[in-house]
Amino acid sequence: MTGYTIRRARREDVGAIVRMLADDQLGAARDDPDDLRPYLRAFEDIDADPNQALVVVVFRDEAVGTLQLTIIPGLARRGALRGQIEAVRIRADHRGSGLGADLVRGAIDESRRRGCALVQLTSDVSRVAAHRFYERLGFVPSHTGFKLKL
Amino acid sequence: MTGYTIRRARREDVGAIVRMLADDQLGAARDDPDDLRPYLRAFEDIDADPNQALVVVVFRDEAVGTLQLTIIPGLARRGALRGQIEAVRIRADHRGSGLGADLVRGAIDESRRRGCALVQLTSDVSRVAAHRFYERLGFVPSHTGFKLKL
Repeated sequence: MTGYTIRRARREDVGAIVRMLADDQLGAARDDPDDLRPYLRAFEDIDADPNQALVVVVFRDEAVGTLQLTIIPGLARRGALRGQIEAVRIRADHRGSGLGADLVRGAIDESRRRGCALVQLTSDVSRVAAHRFYERLGFVPSHTGFKLKL
Repeated sequence: MTGYTIRRARREDVGAIVRMLADDQLGAARDDPDDLRPYLRAFEDIDADPNQALVVVVFRDEAVGTLQLTIIPGLARRGALRGQIEAVRIRADHRGSGLGADLVRGAIDESRRRGCALVQLTSDVSRVAAHRFYERLGFVPSHTGFKLKL
């Protein structure tokens, strides 16, 4: 991890984050880094919400990894908070070095600091390598994740 | 649906909601309606957060169904909002009447009103009947849901 820094995302990281979202087997059709306006609007909402933490890994002043952590209050499990991880991406040329594991472990640590009773995430059923990665980190594939497009 | 009203949960509904959470194949070991204090604290947090909507179905002044909708901002999908449904429960003696479908459809409608691009939820792999229910409502089981207890 020499040369890498994990920190909260800033407005100037949004372009690099969107390029990672678009450079992906599933995200290519859904995201467009040529028009950042909708992403910058969304960034303002995320950044202003104390229950959201958009995080980047920076290498030589550029974001090369990202994830979003959302803290969700709930009644179940004696009023437990849960941490939810979304949009985990590592730039292709920085994969295989343990960066993703460090990033996810950071989100687990932050969830623990905030008093969460569990951390959850979903991963597309086609992302087989990602599933092995999460299981190595201790996650249990106990649920089916359903989506409905509006 | 005669006699049923869907509305936001109030503090006085918390006891009935927790009894539904505890009266469940998976929740029985995790929730305890005899001590409402942690639940009432959590209710205050949920109720104060504009991105949360804890909803109940009321029949004769008692909550007999519940779910929680969380609106999550994100960068992916051109800065889309997503609606997330958690903690869906219908009291045993009110099942089979279409109440659950009405409740979930209400959360889908609310997500659409708030501009969400998708609605998501996870369901324990053992809840086979629930999976058929969500598929009938149009949800696609495209993801694996991972949990890590802290």
